[in-house]
Amino acid sequence: MTIQVHGYAAQQAKSPLGPYSFERHEPCDYDIVIDIRYCGICHTDIHQVGDEWGESKFPMVPGHEITGIVLQVGPRVTRYKVGDRVGVGCFINSCRKCEPCRKNLEQYCTEGMTTTYNGTERDGTPTQGGYSNKIVVDENYVLSIPDNLPLDKTAPLLCAGITLYSPLMHWKAGPGKKVAIIGLGGIGHMGVKIAHALGAEVTVLSHSLKKQEDGKKLGADYFYATSDLKTFEKLTGYFDLIINTVSAEIDWNQYLDLLALDGTMVVVGIPENKIPVGSFSLVAGRRSIAGSLIGGIKETQEMLDFCSKNNIASEIEVVPIQKVNDAYKRVLDSDVRYRFVIDMKSLEQH
Amino acid sequence: MTIQVHGYAAQQAKSPLGPYSFERHEPCDYDIVIDIRYCGICHTDIHQVGDEWGESKFPMVPGHEITGIVLQVGPRVTRYKVGDRVGVGCFINSCRKCEPCRKNLEQYCTEGMTTTYNGTERDGTPTQGGYSNKIVVDENYVLSIPDNLPLDKTAPLLCAGITLYSPLMHWKAGPGKKVAIIGLGGIGHMGVKIAHALGAEVTVLSHSLKKQEDGKKLGADYFYATSDLKTFEKLTGYFDLIINTVSAEIDWNQYLDLLALDGTMVVVGIPENKIPVGSFSLVAGRRSIAGSLIGGIKETQEMLDFCSKNNIASEIEVVPIQKVNDAYKRVLDSDVRYRFVIDMKSLEQH
Repeated sequence: MTIQVHGYAAQQAKSPLGPYSFERHEPCDYDIVIDIRYCGICHTDIHQVGDEWGESKFPMVPGHEITGIVLQVGPRVTRYKVGDRVGVGCFINSCRKCEPCRKNLEQYCTEGMTTTYNGTERDGTPTQGGYSNKIVVDENYVLSIPDNLPLDKTAPLLCAGITLYSPLMHWKAGPGKKVAIIGLGGIGHMGVKIAHALGAEVTVLSHSLKKQEDGKKLGADYFYATSDLKTFEKLTGYFDLIINTVSAEIDWNQYLDLLALDGTMVVVGIPENKIPVGSFSLVAGRRSIAGSLIGGIKETQEMLDFCSKNNIASEIEVVPIQKVNDAYKRVLDSDVRYRFVIDMKSLEQH
Repeated sequence: MTIQVHGYAAQQAKSPLGPYSFERHEPCDYDIVIDIRYCGICHTDIHQVGDEWGESKFPMVPGHEITGIVLQVGPRVTRYKVGDRVGVGCFINSCRKCEPCRKNLEQYCTEGMTTTYNGTERDGTPTQGGYSNKIVVDENYVLSIPDNLPLDKTAPLLCAGITLYSPLMHWKAGPGKKVAIIGLGGIGHMGVKIAHALGAEVTVLSHSLKKQEDGKKLGADYFYATSDLKTFEKLTGYFDLIINTVSAEIDWNQYLDLLALDGTMVVVGIPENKIPVGSFSLVAGRRSIAGSLIGGIKETQEMLDFCSKNNIASEIEVVPIQKVNDAYKRVLDSDVRYRFVIDMKSLEQH
């Protein structure tokens, strides 16, 4: 027995997404069937559909910012019951045995996490993501969505939110800390909100001042244009933590020099080219450049609870799934404030 | 009144060092006059004499691994008395007001530390280093050499020793931690000794197995040749901390991939070219690449006391100053185990 699922898929690399029906397995002992209500559009979806990282499998149903309602539970499920508000992020399984898994850092699983889509389940089945009406996930990889968080605005927290929350926590953003976020997009705007709620002084470093007003409303204390070279003179040695959310090429050393003693610059994306790091910038201030990848399940739940407590969610534009290809184009043009979220009810329209 | 000093200097960039007489100022209130007994030859000396970093001042008396005996003290000196065994490292002053200075991290002084040679004192006088018979230094920038440490073998601790001790402490090398030292030279061999004494598991990553026996004697648990590609397969994800002591070009990402989750690779030199860092290596394991520069006065004293307690000093070859130019050639050929130290008594020979 299998579950019939409707969604949108890319049939091959770079092709537009279109309607696609497929099957998911019946829930096993610990599985939950989720009625997907919303799914965010992450830039990663576009990279994967475009096969830009070279490992894409087709047909591909993207989507890893999933919120919905529990529809059915497997016989041994204890954490969730039918009707619960739940979420699924970037992965749905991991080896559960390696050191990172045992430390609740499944995103760094040494065997590789099972990604929500464009991955392979432990039994070899290709995974398909959240641009669909149902998904089946082990309860241990499902998040609980607090009551005060709306399902649409919460969807992007499952990737964009945790991508920033995790490094902000790991590198101890908080009162007395000066944090810069490079780029005020889907990921960056979550960084501003979360860093502000953590009590840090938050600066946005954006190409222009176009989004200045927005940035301040979202919680930024300061907003600088990086197209203005004076910005770099003025802020030399200033920040304890800089998180780079943009995938465009930047002059990395210019930004490294903005770090204070013992400051860290965190990369949360995979820029196409290698990062040319001047060792003098590192050595002269015991600075670091580091990477961070989403967050583990435990930390993602903490992030949701933190957002609940601080009334934080994503700024979104809800679109029907029929508009997904247009939305992709607008993401590439940075023409969204700040995240597209697909309303899965639209799947019922023909 | 001034103090007459004899030493060896380079008269211009890349010229051989030769005898040179010059003057140092009389001790001010807090100054100490040191009768220099030994001075280590650091690779930096060769870079500076060669004007490879573009800011060399000539004539230049190099040397920043200095040990000797207190000959005279200024009227307000309280920390040292005539006859004390003392050392001077890479800097002899700093602003004393900035945040790094107030944190005892004078090496990161935002105004710039006053380097022991090829620098400028706060009054504008060029500084001249330890390839000479006397030096005048503020007592706050002088180290006390514990009785059981011989002055010759201790000289290299003042730069090579602290260069490794500081990152080993900062990134918490100790029991249960797996530390790799890239390169078993003047700096690297101190790293092996100190990391071993700190209780860490120590691995040397050397170009060949030529120094394997030495490495193990110095305290390495494991020794691998990096010319053997199997080394990189075998050690993927293994180390908590890697310290790169070599200035030669390496495939940085190959080494970054040897780091475990949350591991750090530390650069302690200034390679000529930018370091091309693949962000995937960073992101996939929350890895960092960081820089570290010698250590502050407080930490340098702690290092000396640690070495005293653990009977650690440098492996050296003592040379008369007349052989300094030959020694430079041999350093460039990696033909020294593991540090040259100049015996300043030789200055009296003609």
